[in-house]
Amino acid sequence: MYYFDNGATTFPKPQEVYEEIYKAMTEYGANPGRSGHDLALRASRGIYETREVVAKLFSVKNPMNIVFTYNCTESLNIAIKGLLKPGDHVITTSMEHNSVLRPIKHLESIGVENTIVWAHKDGQIDPDEIRNAIKRNTKLIVTTHVSNLTGTIMPVKEIGIIAREHGIAYLLDAAQSAGVYPINAEELGVHMIAFPGHKGLLGPQGTGGLYIREELQIDQFIQGGTGSASYSLNQPEEMPDKFESGTPSSPGIIGLGKGIEYINKRGIDNIRNHEEELTSYFIQEVARIDGIRLYGPLDTSKQGAVVALNIRDLDSSEVSFVLNEEFGIYVRPGLHCAPLAHETIGTMEQGAVRFSFGPFNTQEELDYAVRALHRISKEL
Amino acid sequence: MYYFDNGATTFPKPQEVYEEIYKAMTEYGANPGRSGHDLALRASRGIYETREVVAKLFSVKNPMNIVFTYNCTESLNIAIKGLLKPGDHVITTSMEHNSVLRPIKHLESIGVENTIVWAHKDGQIDPDEIRNAIKRNTKLIVTTHVSNLTGTIMPVKEIGIIAREHGIAYLLDAAQSAGVYPINAEELGVHMIAFPGHKGLLGPQGTGGLYIREELQIDQFIQGGTGSASYSLNQPEEMPDKFESGTPSSPGIIGLGKGIEYINKRGIDNIRNHEEELTSYFIQEVARIDGIRLYGPLDTSKQGAVVALNIRDLDSSEVSFVLNEEFGIYVRPGLHCAPLAHETIGTMEQGAVRFSFGPFNTQEELDYAVRALHRISKEL
Repeated sequence: MYYFDNGATTFPKPQEVYEEIYKAMTEYGANPGRSGHDLALRASRGIYETREVVAKLFSVKNPMNIVFTYNCTESLNIAIKGLLKPGDHVITTSMEHNSVLRPIKHLESIGVENTIVWAHKDGQIDPDEIRNAIKRNTKLIVTTHVSNLTGTIMPVKEIGIIAREHGIAYLLDAAQSAGVYPINAEELGVHMIAFPGHKGLLGPQGTGGLYIREELQIDQFIQGGTGSASYSLNQPEEMPDKFESGTPSSPGIIGLGKGIEYINKRGIDNIRNHEEELTSYFIQEVARIDGIRLYGPLDTSKQGAVVALNIRDLDSSEVSFVLNEEFGIYVRPGLHCAPLAHETIGTMEQGAVRFSFGPFNTQEELDYAVRALHRISKEL
Repeated sequence: MYYFDNGATTFPKPQEVYEEIYKAMTEYGANPGRSGHDLALRASRGIYETREVVAKLFSVKNPMNIVFTYNCTESLNIAIKGLLKPGDHVITTSMEHNSVLRPIKHLESIGVENTIVWAHKDGQIDPDEIRNAIKRNTKLIVTTHVSNLTGTIMPVKEIGIIAREHGIAYLLDAAQSAGVYPINAEELGVHMIAFPGHKGLLGPQGTGGLYIREELQIDQFIQGGTGSASYSLNQPEEMPDKFESGTPSSPGIIGLGKGIEYINKRGIDNIRNHEEELTSYFIQEVARIDGIRLYGPLDTSKQGAVVALNIRDLDSSEVSFVLNEEFGIYVRPGLHCAPLAHETIGTMEQGAVRFSFGPFNTQEELDYAVRALHRISKEL
C-alpha cells in the first residue's frame, strides 16, 4: 500500500494515538464534565490536556479559547457565521475549500456581501489585492494557509498586517498547515484559527477545533447541555462551553493530544523539513515524465507537501484509478472540493491527480510512484 | 468500579466495538467519500453499513434518510432550527433536556413561539395537554422518549397520533431510548428521530444521528465540502450529504455499527428486560432505606433504567461524592441539564442522585450500591 492522500486525512497515525484512544474507550470511557466521579474527571482531564497542547502549539495563552468541534468545516462555519451579520462584507480567495466558499455563498441570502480575490495561475495571492478589496463594511478576511490543491503557501503574515491595520478580523483556515507549519496566533495577528484534528495534527477523524481571540464576539448556532449553568435555559457565555454543547468525542480529543505530543517530540521543523524534502524530490522526478503537467509554485519555500499533476489531457480519475488498481497507490483525483482553485489553475474539466505527503512517507515510496507515473504516461 | 452513569454514556461497550474502531483506524483510516481508492472505499462502505443498521433499527426504508452528526445535541439543533421559521409555534414538555430547551429558547429571539407542557410530579405527560396546546401556527412537537432524570416513558404513540391528526411534525428525542426501546418510525408516525451513538446504541462518543422523513424540508446550518457536486458553491440538496459537511468520524460511525450489531445479536427485548429487572429490583431495595426519596413512576412499565433519588435533604452532590470516594460507585448528581424536569419533581435546590443502568450491569453490583446507600443514610 502506497498512501499519498494525507491532504484528506493523515494515515497512518503515530502508534500512541491509537493506543491512547483504545485506553480512553476501555479504561475511562465516561462522559467528561457531566458527572463528578473519578472516571468522568479522568476523561475531563484528558480533554483539558489536549486543550493545553493545542493552545501551546498556536502560542495561545488561555487554553479555554480553544474550542473543540467535529471537524474543521464546523469550525469554519462557526467562525464565519458567528461573526458576519447582514450588511457586512467578507473577503476571501479563489483558492479556498468549499468549507469556506459554501458558507460565504450561503450568507449572500441574508445580505452578507463577499469579494473573492483571484489567485495567480500557481495559486499565489497578491496581498495588495486583498487590501484593494477592503470596503467600509468589511468585517472579515478568510484565507487558507496552504492550498489543498496546489500546496501554495498564502502570504498570511502580510494579510495579518493588513487586517490589523484596518481593524478587520482575520480567520485562518489551517486545514493543510496545522502541525506542519508554525502558527503563532499573536505574531500572525489572526483572530481565529480553524483546524482539523485528523490531518497534520495526527489525531483521529471526528475531531477539529477553533481558536477564538478573547475580545471577539462570536455567536454559536448550536445550543444544548454543557454540563455548566444547568439551571439556565440560556446557553452559557463562558468559553469554551458556549460552543461545546452535548457530549464531545472524549477518546478522539484525547487521541488528538497524543498526535500533537508526537509532533512536539519529533519536532514540527523536522516534520516540515522531511515533507519539504519529499516534495522537492517528487517535483524534480515527476518533471521528467513525458507529458506531465504540474501546478503550483513548484518550490517548497512557497509550497506545502501537496503536488497536483496531470498526464497530458488524461482524465484525473482515470489516472488515479490505474494508480490504485495496478500499483496500489492511493491519491485523490477530481476537484478536491475546491472548484474555484481548479478554475484558477485551469483544470475545471480535467480535475487533477493530487499527491499529498505525510510524516511517515519515504523516498522509496516516492520512487515507486514516479516509476508508476512513467509507465502510465507510456501506456495510457 | 461500579458504573451507574449509563444515562450519560454507556460503559463499557461491547468488545467488538473497541476492536472495530481500532481496526478502522489502523487498517483503513482513509477519508471516506473523498477519494476513490481502495482504502477510502472501504471506509465509505463501513459508514454505509452503519447507515443501514440504523435505518433497519428504526424501520426506516431508505438508509440515506439517516444523517450522522457529532452528537444528539447537534441532531436536535438541526431538526428544530431546520424546520422552525419566524411566526411558527413549537410545543415541548418540562421533561426535556437543555439540548431541546435551549435551542427553543434561542428561537424566541427570532420570533418562534413555544409552549411548554408541564408534566405531573412523576414526570408523566398527559397527551391531552399536548393537544390543547396546539395553535393555528404550531409546526412542531418535540418530546423526549424517556426522561433522563426520572426515566419516565412518554406517551409517544398518542402524541404521534395527535401530531398526524393535526398535520404537525413530531421530533422524537431518543437520547435515552434508542437501542433499548423499539422505535418504529412508520408506526409511531414520527417525522424526525434524534439519537446519540454513545448511549443505548453502544457506539463511541462523538457519534450521533438524525432520521429525517422524506417529505420534510429541513435547512442545514453547516455548509462545506461533501465530496459530491464539488464544482458547485451551493450545498447539495441530496441526502445525507446536505447535512454531512466535512470529514466524518469514520472509525466512530463504524464502531457504532458494531454496537447496534451487538444489540441485534443479544436482542433489544432481552436488553430491555434485563434493564427492567435491574430497575425494578433497585427500586424495591432502595425503597427500604431510611429517609430515601424516590422520583418518577417507580414502575418499569412506565419507567426506563433511570432512578433518581435523594436521601432526606442531603445535597445530591455530597451523596454522590461519598459514593465515589468511599465506595467507588459512579453516579451523576445535580441537575442533569434538565432544569424544568427538576422543577417538575421539586428538586431544583437539592438536585438528585441519578443511577442509570446499562446492559452490562448486574444484580450483584446493585446489591453493593444498595448497601452503600444504607450506610450513607445512617452515617451522613
